[in-house]
Amino acid sequence: MGEEGRPRKLTIIAWSGDMDKVYPVLILATVAAASGWEVVVFVTFWGLFAFKRNDRWITGKDWMTKMLSLMFRGGSEHLGLTRLNMAGMGPWMMKKVFAKNQIPPLRELIETAVEMGVKIMPCQMTMDALGIKREDLIDGLGESAGAAAALEEAATSDVTLFI
Amino acid sequence: MGEEGRPRKLTIIAWSGDMDKVYPVLILATVAAASGWEVVVFVTFWGLFAFKRNDRWITGKDWMTKMLSLMFRGGSEHLGLTRLNMAGMGPWMMKKVFAKNQIPPLRELIETAVEMGVKIMPCQMTMDALGIKREDLIDGLGESAGAAAALEEAATSDVTLFI
Amino acid sequence: MGEEGRPRKLTIIAWSGDMDKVYPVLILATVAAASGWEVVVFVTFWGLFAFKRNDRWITGKDWMTKMLSLMFRGGSEHLGLTRLNMAGMGPWMMKKVFAKNQIPPLRELIETAVEMGVKIMPCQMTMDALGIKREDLIDGLGESAGAAAALEEAATSDVTLFI
Repeated sequence: MGEEGRPRKLTIIAWSGDMDKVYPVLILATVAAASGWEVVVFVTFWGLFAFKRNDRWITGKDWMTKMLSLMFRGGSEHLGLTRLNMAGMGPWMMKKVFAKNQIPPLRELIETAVEMGVKIMPCQMTMDALGIKREDLIDGLGESAGAAAALEEAATSDVTLFI
Repeated sequence: MGEEGRPRKLTIIAWSGDMDKVYPVLILATVAAASGWEVVVFVTFWGLFAFKRNDRWITGKDWMTKMLSLMFRGGSEHLGLTRLNMAGMGPWMMKKVFAKNQIPPLRELIETAVEMGVKIMPCQMTMDALGIKREDLIDGLGESAGAAAALEEAATSDVTLFI
Repeated sequence: MGEEGRPRKLTIIAWSGDMDKVYPVLILATVAAASGWEVVVFVTFWGLFAFKRNDRWITGKDWMTKMLSLMFRGGSEHLGLTRLNMAGMGPWMMKKVFAKNQIPPLRELIETAVEMGVKIMPCQMTMDALGIKREDLIDGLGESAGAAAALEEAATSDVTLFI
């Protein structure tokens, strides 16, 4: 419980689209939710790509945004690592290591977060700029929003993180 | 409004010198300021390079700091991306994409932030270590300060982010 | 002093294993501790590698985790930079630049933090997944813990940062 008897609240600004950064976003979000916290995840910039459908590759509204999506596909199953990426071998090994240790894959962690009531807000500005449409994103996300809404969530949170 | 009727306050420790990270710093700072928040941006390490004059390249006080500035020029118009940098093609494309979507260039966002009263504090330790002088930095910045001052700003903030 | 006369409190989730990110973790931690703050550093993922013994290279429990440790050795004296790494020349130059400016090496900053009472909590999940044993880590660290404990520390902090 936070002050005044209300539940604690965690807001994460999830900026990164790397597997090793999306993991802490989702582990912190689900652990907090499991502890009864209210949790908001504002998904912006590269972070939005982690919430693209795994079967959607090319997105965008013109050749430049299409080309960017070609080079950075996104989808929780296709993310790379910030280090030791080694052309995909690092992420493959990390997935094996995690599976051996009963750490769920990102796709499952996202589903769990959604089921637990974690509010995942896609950044409208990123969607507009990169031409990512609602139907390019996975189900279960909340309303898209802007930076002002994210800041308002953060201002009423016990803990706010930029990841 | 925060507790006790004072305006809300946002402190950002702006550590990164990458275009895709300096954008959220400035978008969050200007959106918060536009909503009446007090905003402090403590600019440290690579982040300082985003606030170098665009017409200043070599800075530093000895061959090593000069060489570091040679390899990482800085200036808001010369920043790279954390991913898809592609030898400068990524940043060029991102600038085009942003301009098409009425997202102002970093240089303008910095000017807007300064005009709105965002307090931008350069990190004295970084300036000393890398030999970056006050005249190497753009106009409009506040007093340089240390980590203790940044923490004090953070401690009285509703939201603090390390970006 | 924070509210109600208790000392201020800083919690850092130290995720990164890069020299240029471990520095701000330790500078903020020691400066806060020197100002009388309570300080908690939750060391997770790549961040754990910064707290490996400098004389320990291969760690892990199977060929994959051993191979990951082979490629990312860790230890505060063997960390790289997020940019300008240049196959180790960047970190070497940065160490020289810092030493010339009386900025202590990471190893000393960690010792100082421990002496000042900074509570450094290794992430149990990372240790389990990557097969990093207690004896692979430096002395002076506190009890290992999970994300729930880290969030609880954060919830009672004046400032929380994810670095």
